[in-house]
Amino acid sequence: MEIEVFPNPAPGRNYEITHVNQEFTSVCPKTGLPDFGTVTIKYVPDELCIELKALKYYFLEFRNKGIFYEAVTNVILDDMIKVCNPKELEVITEWKVRGGINSTIRASYKKGE
Amino acid sequence: MEIEVFPNPAPGRNYEITHVNQEFTSVCPKTGLPDFGTVTIKYVPDELCIELKALKYYFLEFRNKGIFYEAVTNVILDDMIKVCNPKELEVITEWKVRGGINSTIRASYKKGE
Amino acid sequence: MEIEVFPNPAPGRNYEITHVNQEFTSVCPKTGLPDFGTVTIKYVPDELCIELKALKYYFLEFRNKGIFYEAVTNVILDDMIKVCNPKELEVITEWKVRGGINSTIRASYKKGE
Amino acid sequence: MEIEVFPNPAPGRNYEITHVNQEFTSVCPKTGLPDFGTVTIKYVPDELCIELKALKYYFLEFRNKGIFYEAVTNVILDDMIKVCNPKELEVITEWKVRGGINSTIRASYKKGE
Amino acid sequence: MEIEVFPNPAPGRNYEITHVNQEFTSVCPKTGLPDFGTVTIKYVPDELCIELKALKYYFLEFRNKGIFYEAVTNVILDDMIKVCNPKELEVITEWKVRGGINSTIRASYKKGE
Amino acid sequence: MEIEVFPNPAPGRNYEITHVNQEFTSVCPKTGLPDFGTVTIKYVPDELCIELKALKYYFLEFRNKGIFYEAVTNVILDDMIKVCNPKELEVITEWKVRGGINSTIRASYKKGE
Amino acid sequence: MEIEVFPNPAPGRNYEITHVNQEFTSVCPKTGLPDFGTVTIKYVPDELCIELKALKYYFLEFRNKGIFYEAVTNVILDDMIKVCNPKELEVITEWKVRGGINSTIRASYKKGE
Amino acid sequence: MEIEVFPNPAPGRNYEITHVNQEFTSVCPKTGLPDFGTVTIKYVPDELCIELKALKYYFLEFRNKGIFYEAVTNVILDDMIKVCNPKELEVITEWKVRGGINSTIRASYKKGE
Amino acid sequence: MEIEVFPNPAPGRNYEITHVNQEFTSVCPKTGLPDFGTVTIKYVPDELCIELKALKYYFLEFRNKGIFYEAVTNVILDDMIKVCNPKELEVITEWKVRGGINSTIRASYKKGE
Amino acid sequence: MEIEVFPNPAPGRNYEITHVNQEFTSVCPKTGLPDFGTVTIKYVPDELCIELKALKYYFLEFRNKGIFYEAVTNVILDDMIKVCNPKELEVITEWKVRGGINSTIRASYKKGE
Repeated sequence: MEIEVFPNPAPGRNYEITHVNQEFTSVCPKTGLPDFGTVTIKYVPDELCIELKALKYYFLEFRNKGIFYEAVTNVILDDMIKVCNPKELEVITEWKVRGGINSTIRASYKKGE
Repeated sequence: MEIEVFPNPAPGRNYEITHVNQEFTSVCPKTGLPDFGTVTIKYVPDELCIELKALKYYFLEFRNKGIFYEAVTNVILDDMIKVCNPKELEVITEWKVRGGINSTIRASYKKGE
Repeated sequence: MEIEVFPNPAPGRNYEITHVNQEFTSVCPKTGLPDFGTVTIKYVPDELCIELKALKYYFLEFRNKGIFYEAVTNVILDDMIKVCNPKELEVITEWKVRGGINSTIRASYKKGE
Repeated sequence: MEIEVFPNPAPGRNYEITHVNQEFTSVCPKTGLPDFGTVTIKYVPDELCIELKALKYYFLEFRNKGIFYEAVTNVILDDMIKVCNPKELEVITEWKVRGGINSTIRASYKKGE
Repeated sequence: MEIEVFPNPAPGRNYEITHVNQEFTSVCPKTGLPDFGTVTIKYVPDELCIELKALKYYFLEFRNKGIFYEAVTNVILDDMIKVCNPKELEVITEWKVRGGINSTIRASYKKGE
Repeated sequence: MEIEVFPNPAPGRNYEITHVNQEFTSVCPKTGLPDFGTVTIKYVPDELCIELKALKYYFLEFRNKGIFYEAVTNVILDDMIKVCNPKELEVITEWKVRGGINSTIRASYKKGE
Repeated sequence: MEIEVFPNPAPGRNYEITHVNQEFTSVCPKTGLPDFGTVTIKYVPDELCIELKALKYYFLEFRNKGIFYEAVTNVILDDMIKVCNPKELEVITEWKVRGGINSTIRASYKKGE
Repeated sequence: MEIEVFPNPAPGRNYEITHVNQEFTSVCPKTGLPDFGTVTIKYVPDELCIELKALKYYFLEFRNKGIFYEAVTNVILDDMIKVCNPKELEVITEWKVRGGINSTIRASYKKGE
Repeated sequence: MEIEVFPNPAPGRNYEITHVNQEFTSVCPKTGLPDFGTVTIKYVPDELCIELKALKYYFLEFRNKGIFYEAVTNVILDDMIKVCNPKELEVITEWKVRGGINSTIRASYKKGE
Repeated sequence: MEIEVFPNPAPGRNYEITHVNQEFTSVCPKTGLPDFGTVTIKYVPDELCIELKALKYYFLEFRNKGIFYEAVTNVILDDMIKVCNPKELEVITEWKVRGGINSTIRASYKKGE
């Protein structure tokens, strides 16, 4: 997996970047039916920032992939750590109702912990 | 009570899973009339995650059961602890208006406390 | 089926009464799973008005009945016509999402048409 | 019943005045418990307009009166016709939920019909 | 009263212009206390359009003027007719709650009626 | 004052119960006019829970009582402490606009402080 | 294309059925990127009603199909006419923002026109 | 001015296409300051449909153009008629608050009128 | 400046009183044009509470006074400290949009700091 | 860059000033297309406050400037520090959806850290 990055324009400062994709879709591995959700990526960059258009294409790779809510959240977290090695990172996935139930998964990472 | 669980796909990481059922209904033991509410289950998994469809069927067992707001909240908390032995757990029940009054019950658990 | 009615307090005037039950539930005859919805009854009374508490108990009779959206809407319309013989009547049922789809059924009646 | 009125400042023009009281309360004659609602009065004045403060005091007279939804709506309609003899008038009462059911009553009047 | 106008840029076409001032205030002539509201002016221009900044200053003239809801609505309607002689015009004033009551006045004009 | 209570079904656990009455009304002792508001009671039960229907009747006792916002809030706090001796308690009263001003009063109690 | 239908339970009455799918996705044939939208189907049944689960699977067939907004709307309209031969039918597609622009397409059909 | 169009995929049917651009900006010719607004284009196509990306670039041409609200609305209406010769067309521009006033302009066209 | 106060009915308890005036208006000293905003006063009373009607009249004194956002916020904070000598106090002013910009000022005080 | 400032009217007190510009626009350096967003500036003034009209003109300088989200946020932060040397400062930029993704950047500064 290669996602385009660019140098952090303010590397000496701790600040927070959030990208919210309201058009995420993957496939339930159990039923084969699509899942729909919102994916939020919030991070404090170190030397690298994630390029926005590249991030869009990264999300598209899940469109026909069978993967559970809990797994997709942790996979995105792991991928983003590899891609831009941030100081801090949080990934939140919020899923549309299934069987009357809405689900949200929230995972985070802090460098050095 | 047996609710299907599956192995936590990221057991080495503390992260939070939330399931919100907006279609919960039980019966008031005093009046015999149905109560309607939203039940939220928020937990940090240890080794096991709760399977979503199984959770739906678990909630259905309350449909014709006579039980008070305070009791149903604590029963769900106790059941979830038994089912998946989480690191942390919170159960919130929010009830539709009765006699002009909306009620919310919130109970939580932390392993080792 | 007997639902309590009372004499229209303003029989010489055409006016409109609306009752909205946001806590309607019945059972899907195909899956056996509960459906949840809002039922609206809007009518122009002739000689009789529907008693509110009796209406609540009438709705409760659907709680464990297996019946499709389209049927339940037409059944309520037919029952209300028998109960209070109104000048005009409209029944609207709005159902919570199932399989990503929200459904609404709307049926109406006008005396003499 | 006497409600202060004042001369219509634009008697040659058909225009519409709406007053919405969101703090209406009366008593259910069956249970003795209070009902709460919003009362809307919408009229096209002829020679007289209803004074706002007087209208407030008129509404207060229902505070401890036992009266059904349908009756209170028609009583207010009749009273307003007597008080200001409008060209057109509509009264809408919207009631807070009772037994899971919200009710709305809507009655209107047109001079010469 | 002089409000700046400008030539209608599309005089051969019937189209609708709406200006909504959410910061209108005048004074109640009975209590001396300020009233606050939103004033909407909707018109089909004939040969002239109302200049927006001039309209703002026109509204400011009411700031310390004692005038009732019904009167202010009709005065603005009359003034706008004089200023730009429109094909159609509607003035709506919506007032903040006084004594638990919200009021709205709506007056309109059509050339040649 | 006697309000029905029942034994806490989970006495060994600290959890939070909230009841929100959106239909509270009392009387302003200065003007004799009614006040309308929402009263929230949030508590951590010790040995006793407050019965919901009894709470509704308790609130009704204020309907025709003349009492200021600040006083009613503290009176309810004191009464609830006597009734169920909770570990923690918070009372919030939120009042409808009077003279263009919305008021909120918030008082709390913690056993042993 | 075969979508399961079932006999209209109230064939002698004109009434309206609406299904809203908030999880529709297809692919832009120009860019190859996914489009997301809401599809509404509103119809007056004649002899047949559309089965809800079958409708869900019908929508899934567009998931990886390249098709423009205007075409997908008309295709769904044509398909539904063939499937259930309704008295009246309306299809509305509302699309998420692309290039700062939200689009909505609305097409309808009436038997015998 | 040339905006790309494409053949109407359902030329024998009257249906409605709406594009809403929430990111429109032009410049006030009086003050030189930018105006911001939402532009809605709603039309019934005849033989041609407007291409969405081309429409986006058309809107961008106003970014640094000095033009009044009323004029820009009529210019867009005239341009769209020339571009796609629709059966019906409506253009609505809604502008952000200036001097406490929100403005909306609404112009429409019907072929053959 | 004299604003009526009354004795705190629960002087031995720390609790919080909030008054929100959504109808505040003053004048910009630079342009002479009116500013509109919401003023919130939140305090923990010591021995005295602020009388609500008196507070309304206090706010009215700003109606035709030329004063900047930052100054009016600090002036109200200073005045309230003098009037009722509270344990804690916070003043928030939120202003309607000017030149596309909304402003909020927030100042607070704690006795003994 | 020179932005007009004025002396803090309450220099001995720590208080917070927030300005929110909902009409910010700049240009994407990659595509040449405009970006739209909301810019929030929240600061605790030391000796100087930022003049509101000057701030509006400062924001206008970005209208045709090519600059990325992350850079514009840090540039505004640096500029504001130079202009008014505040005790604390936070800049938040929230951007309209691009490629289905909403972005927010949040950077802050504290004197002496």
